[in-house]
Amino acid sequence: MPPVIAIDAMGGDRAPGEIVAGACAAVDACDVDVVLVGRAGEIAACIGGELPARVEILDASDVIAMHEEPAAAVRTKKDSSIVRCAEAVRDGRAAAMVGAGNTGATMAAALLRLGRIQGVHRPAVAIPLPVFGETAERGPRFQLLVDGGATVDPEPEWLVEWAEQARAYARIRLDVEQPTIGLLSNGEEQGKGDALRKRAFELLSDVKGFVGNVEGRDLMRRSADVIITDGFTGNVALKTLEGSLMGLAAVVFGVVDEAGTPWAGAAGALKLRLLEVAAPIVPDNTGGGMLLGVQGVCVISHGSSSAAAIVNAVRVARDCVAADVVARLTEAVEHAR
Amino acid sequence: MPPVIAIDAMGGDRAPGEIVAGACAAVDACDVDVVLVGRAGEIAACIGGELPARVEILDASDVIAMHEEPAAAVRTKKDSSIVRCAEAVRDGRAAAMVGAGNTGATMAAALLRLGRIQGVHRPAVAIPLPVFGETAERGPRFQLLVDGGATVDPEPEWLVEWAEQARAYARIRLDVEQPTIGLLSNGEEQGKGDALRKRAFELLSDVKGFVGNVEGRDLMRRSADVIITDGFTGNVALKTLEGSLMGLAAVVFGVVDEAGTPWAGAAGALKLRLLEVAAPIVPDNTGGGMLLGVQGVCVISHGSSSAAAIVNAVRVARDCVAADVVARLTEAVEHAR
Repeated sequence: MPPVIAIDAMGGDRAPGEIVAGACAAVDACDVDVVLVGRAGEIAACIGGELPARVEILDASDVIAMHEEPAAAVRTKKDSSIVRCAEAVRDGRAAAMVGAGNTGATMAAALLRLGRIQGVHRPAVAIPLPVFGETAERGPRFQLLVDGGATVDPEPEWLVEWAEQARAYARIRLDVEQPTIGLLSNGEEQGKGDALRKRAFELLSDVKGFVGNVEGRDLMRRSADVIITDGFTGNVALKTLEGSLMGLAAVVFGVVDEAGTPWAGAAGALKLRLLEVAAPIVPDNTGGGMLLGVQGVCVISHGSSSAAAIVNAVRVARDCVAADVVARLTEAVEHAR
Repeated sequence: MPPVIAIDAMGGDRAPGEIVAGACAAVDACDVDVVLVGRAGEIAACIGGELPARVEILDASDVIAMHEEPAAAVRTKKDSSIVRCAEAVRDGRAAAMVGAGNTGATMAAALLRLGRIQGVHRPAVAIPLPVFGETAERGPRFQLLVDGGATVDPEPEWLVEWAEQARAYARIRLDVEQPTIGLLSNGEEQGKGDALRKRAFELLSDVKGFVGNVEGRDLMRRSADVIITDGFTGNVALKTLEGSLMGLAAVVFGVVDEAGTPWAGAAGALKLRLLEVAAPIVPDNTGGGMLLGVQGVCVISHGSSSAAAIVNAVRVARDCVAADVVARLTEAVEHAR
């Protein structure tokens, strides 16, 4: 039986239009049933005519905006779309949730309504980064950056919990038998890093697959399958990658446009290649990050998600359900204790 | 009278050959006298014949390697090239020092031999980043990332000391009358960030030119003239920028080479443009980072520095001496207290 995916219809810069369109497209593209959670009237207006087959609406009167303080908003807005989304998973009405709204609120809703996996102190987001120039048969090869922004100021021990879970998740998401794990630091040698990194290095040394410190230049490289960091540094690194690649592409394309030269021959090939390289980091294509550490599947999509991004996020959620990811994560944490 | 610049001849992956070549070239290129500090025999062997005019050698028997623990190495290796370099500045034999070796050791030598500017707790490195697509009359427009890697685990108050100094330094280095200052965080809104950032935001609010939080995607943009962060995050961001831009360029160039297509027409223009964009972040061209907070001019060049990189670093050192940067930084810190 196809799984049911609950989608926060009101979350994201382009909600509800793009989210609703993506959810409807995902039904066939991913072979899932979807529950659109949010203001029923607004959602129905986006759909226009009759509700398509395999799409349901779950009414929720409130919305948590992008700028709201996450924990407070989740506490006070009990009838918000993202809280209701998490409750649909908690109550077994849906097998997974997808949200593109306020990331902190999505995380807080999942955490508070679904609860933590036993032995996990705080959740972390596993963000897939493409590896430069590596294309596997089934598409580009990815690396997982954990934590991409869920938990700032972690204790060193929490990084170990994330590493154990990320290893289990990498097996499924990256299809790698023995994933390697690196600690993002300011130098390769042991002893580099701030207080958090120094202690985390010692603790991670007992984790299978740990290869030691990696650096900023090892992101998007074949350096390690999983790169572990705190949510603050992970967010800065992620946005730095995004900004620099987009910035370079814009300058290159900009100049050629300025010159008015048509793209042909070598230049055409180059443009295609640039787009191909950039494609996997375009939020629409990555499929979103999986929240590790909660008792349910929660996929967090980029705030600027289009319909295509939602389809990809739903696909990740579906695959996580099929692979019974939460059970795998739970085992990984149990096994490590 | 031209200033004397002391150069650590033994520091860097390509020392002493490239460093000595760069130092000799800098004499004419920058109109300075240079003192090459290190093993006299090895330096003389690099030069070959007679010592060129305006070049002196200061013998130092020891070398601190790239992997050594900085503080311990500086304490124990009293006759190392970088320690003697710093002493040359302390003793007035040179007006500034340039080092491309172990960054931590260069910083520690400067800190221990030159001492701190009064009111400064720890030093920070100001790294120039080019702004995408912005070219001023005198070359590319830069942004300063502070701290690029000198001090991990700072107190929030230290970030304010760095901001005050960076503002004074930006006036000189960027030639901007009223530099703006952003705090690198994981979101734009006040309240974003880890504990360090939240407290630093409050304190920075009293600093002239403070524009609030900026994000990873604001690096290399016209977001703020100065971007303040701790040395750990700064190092990660810097290496992430370097890695992603080089990675993208490599993929693009790689493919075109593979195809064997000659660079011509639009593609040729594109390649030049890519190189032009990348040029300012190539370590050879940035001129190195200025160490803020010590009582002397210390310019830290990239570990992979070539002769050209050394010439650029010497130029930065010379300009800092000419602008009496240390006095400006001292005033900035005094004025803020």
